[in-house]
Amino acid sequence: MRDVNEFTITEAVKQSFHADDERFKFLLEKLLDHLHDFTRETNLTHEEWMGTLNFLYDCGKISTPERHEFILLSDVLGFSALVDMINTRGGATEGSNLGPFYLPDAPTKELGSDLGGERTGACVLCTGIVRDTLGNPLPGAIVDTWQADSAGTYPIQEEGQDKYDLRGVFTTDDQARYYYTTVLPKPYTVPYDGPVGKLLRAGKRHAWRTAHLHYIVSAPGMRAITTEVFFDGTEYIDNDAVFGVRRSLVAKVERVKPDETFDFELERRPDARIRFDFVLAPGE
Amino acid sequence: MRDVNEFTITEAVKQSFHADDERFKFLLEKLLDHLHDFTRETNLTHEEWMGTLNFLYDCGKISTPERHEFILLSDVLGFSALVDMINTRGGATEGSNLGPFYLPDAPTKELGSDLGGERTGACVLCTGIVRDTLGNPLPGAIVDTWQADSAGTYPIQEEGQDKYDLRGVFTTDDQARYYYTTVLPKPYTVPYDGPVGKLLRAGKRHAWRTAHLHYIVSAPGMRAITTEVFFDGTEYIDNDAVFGVRRSLVAKVERVKPDETFDFELERRPDARIRFDFVLAPGE
Repeated sequence: MRDVNEFTITEAVKQSFHADDERFKFLLEKLLDHLHDFTRETNLTHEEWMGTLNFLYDCGKISTPERHEFILLSDVLGFSALVDMINTRGGATEGSNLGPFYLPDAPTKELGSDLGGERTGACVLCTGIVRDTLGNPLPGAIVDTWQADSAGTYPIQEEGQDKYDLRGVFTTDDQARYYYTTVLPKPYTVPYDGPVGKLLRAGKRHAWRTAHLHYIVSAPGMRAITTEVFFDGTEYIDNDAVFGVRRSLVAKVERVKPDETFDFELERRPDARIRFDFVLAPGE
Repeated sequence: MRDVNEFTITEAVKQSFHADDERFKFLLEKLLDHLHDFTRETNLTHEEWMGTLNFLYDCGKISTPERHEFILLSDVLGFSALVDMINTRGGATEGSNLGPFYLPDAPTKELGSDLGGERTGACVLCTGIVRDTLGNPLPGAIVDTWQADSAGTYPIQEEGQDKYDLRGVFTTDDQARYYYTTVLPKPYTVPYDGPVGKLLRAGKRHAWRTAHLHYIVSAPGMRAITTEVFFDGTEYIDNDAVFGVRRSLVAKVERVKPDETFDFELERRPDARIRFDFVLAPGE
């Protein structure tokens, strides 16, 4: 009869799978190699193994359709960021975290609209051009944005607020520009009342995300990008809890001079301006 | 400001942790190395990444205190077996799956007792000696056993059955022997109605465990072992769904001759016999 030992078991497990899908087989075999090697290299004890499985169990228990603790775990361990990095097309704007607050049916807004309304906080003009990787402007590109307020809260998180607030879907004009005003968002913490919070505390890590604006930018024939824009000099810019920051995604927040004029219409006069251009690569 | 890319992010994540516990730090860093390498080597897509996290989410959702889908996942991917192998002490009986049906408060039974009662199935004498790694017999060792019946079912799984049935805690006699009769257990399937079942189907794998008896054997001053005893020639002995089988844990089921006598008292006359000696190493 067949026998297996701590070295041959990895091959035995691989051979037990007979998947037709070559990619599935490849992923599974790579995962088995890495996780079995991890187990061997660390001489993992039963207590550590069970502790790990119970940690996953606890992540499952706290998860709801609104709170996916495994995504949060992936975020704080840098996997989400790594997957974003790997999947960035050469020349295109780097990808960054989608996060848990995206809504696919946010309201369409006119260019120049203000998303902030009567909220407290600096009013910033967000503006830039959407181009392809050859530098050609992309009029008619879709810029879908969502963000936290100046207290670091997304309206969707607060009872009694309109969940579509601080969101907007813009279409670039004939010069491929987008422009709108909003409140400058502030840092906030990822949920740390669950298993991932325990992990952060065990590692003496904070749960703060540096301030950011979320974007999904797309255009016909181009590969859509999911990314974030960060602000130079903001708190936690160098130690964002989910490793979302890339240098190329950091914009300056510039003061708008009292006598400054704009060559487009704005619903509200801004205190400051963030310029950020997006670049899309050809693709599906 | 700091920047990270797909190669430097692993170090950045490691440096974000400031754990006092050296072992925790070591395990975390090894896990990050392996899982980030996995991600890079496979060029994991967003869809595959999200599919994996949703698989874990689904495992969490189906789990209950009685059904720990993450243990089952660990079992079918050979991790549980690997952890058992790594933690086997030299010279001691090899470890194997604890499984989900252990009860820590099973009833104490007299040597020679019958666990099977009026159940259908072959009556087998289970007997052997408990020794230390130098070959010294260990009288007073504790042999805690539990098993499925001849339909492959644990009484704990069936409404209306006594959950302590087919279980017993024996103490070895002055010759370090254990002996009792029971029904010969049969193969059964691990639960395959959840995410792990989907994984098995995707890999064209069956869910059968070959027949086995569970044991936890302990003695003062010795390291307890959790293991299983398997039967030569049984179905699935070469492709147990959870990779529990080791050659050293396979016993022969021998016919008992009609005129055979025993040098101990038995509550019930057996049809067959399984001999298996356990060896314990010194330890906690």
